[in-house]
Amino acid sequence: MGIVVQKFGGTSVADSERIRVVADRVVETKKRGNDVVVVVSAMGKSTDNLVDLAFQVCDQPAPRELDMLLTAGERVSIALLCMAVIDRGVNATSFTGSQAGILTDAIHGKAKILEINAYRVREALEEGKVPVIAGFQGVSTTKDVTTLGRGGSDTSAVAMAAALGASVCEIYTDVDGVYTADPRRVPSARKLSQVSHEEMLEMAAAGAGVLQVRSVEVARNYGVPVSVRSSFVDVPGTWIVKEEEIMERAIVSGVAHDVSEAKMTVRRVPDRPGVAAIIFRSLADAAVNVDMIVQNVSLDGYTDVSFTLPKTDLPVAHAVLNKICKRIDAAGYDTNENIAKISIVGAGMKTHPGVAADMFTQLAEVGVNIDMISTSTIRLSCVIAVDQLDTALQAIHDHFELEKLPKISARADT
Amino acid sequence: MGIVVQKFGGTSVADSERIRVVADRVVETKKRGNDVVVVVSAMGKSTDNLVDLAFQVCDQPAPRELDMLLTAGERVSIALLCMAVIDRGVNATSFTGSQAGILTDAIHGKAKILEINAYRVREALEEGKVPVIAGFQGVSTTKDVTTLGRGGSDTSAVAMAAALGASVCEIYTDVDGVYTADPRRVPSARKLSQVSHEEMLEMAAAGAGVLQVRSVEVARNYGVPVSVRSSFVDVPGTWIVKEEEIMERAIVSGVAHDVSEAKMTVRRVPDRPGVAAIIFRSLADAAVNVDMIVQNVSLDGYTDVSFTLPKTDLPVAHAVLNKICKRIDAAGYDTNENIAKISIVGAGMKTHPGVAADMFTQLAEVGVNIDMISTSTIRLSCVIAVDQLDTALQAIHDHFELEKLPKISARADT
Repeated sequence: MGIVVQKFGGTSVADSERIRVVADRVVETKKRGNDVVVVVSAMGKSTDNLVDLAFQVCDQPAPRELDMLLTAGERVSIALLCMAVIDRGVNATSFTGSQAGILTDAIHGKAKILEINAYRVREALEEGKVPVIAGFQGVSTTKDVTTLGRGGSDTSAVAMAAALGASVCEIYTDVDGVYTADPRRVPSARKLSQVSHEEMLEMAAAGAGVLQVRSVEVARNYGVPVSVRSSFVDVPGTWIVKEEEIMERAIVSGVAHDVSEAKMTVRRVPDRPGVAAIIFRSLADAAVNVDMIVQNVSLDGYTDVSFTLPKTDLPVAHAVLNKICKRIDAAGYDTNENIAKISIVGAGMKTHPGVAADMFTQLAEVGVNIDMISTSTIRLSCVIAVDQLDTALQAIHDHFELEKLPKISARADT
Repeated sequence: MGIVVQKFGGTSVADSERIRVVADRVVETKKRGNDVVVVVSAMGKSTDNLVDLAFQVCDQPAPRELDMLLTAGERVSIALLCMAVIDRGVNATSFTGSQAGILTDAIHGKAKILEINAYRVREALEEGKVPVIAGFQGVSTTKDVTTLGRGGSDTSAVAMAAALGASVCEIYTDVDGVYTADPRRVPSARKLSQVSHEEMLEMAAAGAGVLQVRSVEVARNYGVPVSVRSSFVDVPGTWIVKEEEIMERAIVSGVAHDVSEAKMTVRRVPDRPGVAAIIFRSLADAAVNVDMIVQNVSLDGYTDVSFTLPKTDLPVAHAVLNKICKRIDAAGYDTNENIAKISIVGAGMKTHPGVAADMFTQLAEVGVNIDMISTSTIRLSCVIAVDQLDTALQAIHDHFELEKLPKISARADT
């Protein structure tokens, strides 16, 4: 039996009762003869509560200190889970990110893993123990504690699985897998038994909140088989695998959506070289995460530049645009927070050029106006009005028959 | 200006408002030109809450994991305090016990400091920063996180002051100094402006909960001047200094009490060699903290053996005595939880042999029966009924005129 890495998110360890349930699962996996390595997030809303505390003592928490603060969260959950596992007769040892050898750069709040020196984790495994590792955190090259950004525990788990050569990384969460659409909005959504790394990357980037994008990148780069499954019900989840291992090949695998973004439009921008550069350089310098960008065709020497960004970045973006508009002689700017992004993702889209037209047609047929469009080789995203999102999701899901299993023979299409 | 170590206890950093007040004090001390090093405890009741969580997930938390869990507490308070200090324009850096170089043995839950390698703290000071260090915690020789036991932050602070050669260690707490008696029980109690290390040690051991005993030992061994003062009101506190520096020399410096102990009496023990050894070796092996021991004069070949112990150790002691009584042919044992220990402490007692008789007389005059007696060179303790404690405290306090300042010329007495 190989090494199984099991990652449990915040909702899976939200209280002592759930921690005991997780301990049961860990012990059961161990007793089946596996070497088990566990990665856990902070309990429930504890990270949010710590952030609240930080803003109670000051307006702008120092990034290094915010990381010191937040890493208290996983420290609590690893210790409690270890106690519960030991209580069940299986030896376990907790490790902070630093103790587990997760070395990162020094960008506090969104550090990137540089390497993993997992000798203490390996040692614990050799002694027959279950290492329980704090997700979300690491230690920088300057020996300061860092965090990997929201959802970073997924990345901790997959990276640890890669470092240990684990045979699988199981991501336990509050949903039981990856669906063809959000089941809360599209009742006919079907759980996917498999999805490729590339598709999962696009889905995650398009708003499917199941996994942190970076964790999927790590899984792809190191060939780690990842299984997304429920920590509450014991049903098969979704495997994230190499594209060539996909059995059931669909043209469109799923439809994702994102309502966390807003749209800004800079109006009547003089259409001369370098103007777009000024706008987006200024936004980037202020750490605004611009997603889609559309520039309309120039009329009478002026154009409109639209882009989407996380709503949380709006205050900063307002400050930037207020300065920039004068400098580039723009007429002003508008903000629209009532938008949604709807995206179809599928490896088969590479070889089916008609998919985009299909999507536009379907949206038109149900009366949904398309505001912005962006594409990648396996994804097509449209910005629409948020109040038309459910209509659009259902129409697209129906049109591509995502509720049905694709034919296995579909492989011949590519 | 030298280095000032300031230690703030849990009540001083119980919420964000109080943390801001502490930050004000730190910044003010720094701006007066001092190098400031801060040691903090966990916020308010957070350590207790973490202990509760541990017992929710299992019956007997693994000691290593309990330490991992509890050290989350100070991690939160150091980070928040740093943020607040930085917010006031003074640079600060938080350090866990491990980062501050507090190396301990590997006895989880009550680790002892072996040495302090404070190079990161010194570095921060050289850069003009305020190092904010997590009290109560360290890292063991096996690289595991340890805790120093309840009140351990006092020891962290005094030991750090010793390691840095600080000119003073200020202990900020919820009382404004060391009193001649507990002011809640003896309204005429007077705050001492000075007390010697030896007297403070005896007072702490006799139940005066102001400082952890070990912190006073470290202060004495390394000659660290310690000042105990209030974090809420800005009034002079109590200096703990070398005996030869004491200006106002009293025969009795204070009267302490302790209601946290119980008394056990093993009845009709056969009076033969080795019996006491069996009883107290068995209790020690079970980690029961026996305090006072009294053995009555033997009558008809049998005797009673009484001892006091923390009430929290009673369950373990019951288990031990149930086994032992048969083995030593004792008739059985009694437990009395309604006792109090009242102690007088004073360096002058060494040269005033009449003090013990004075205390016994005073207790007799107010009708207080003495159950057990124990003495050291500068302390005399009596066990009495707990419902007579206030009467006894007031009588002793009045008799030795502790509400009055001792004459400075009293030094001539010795």
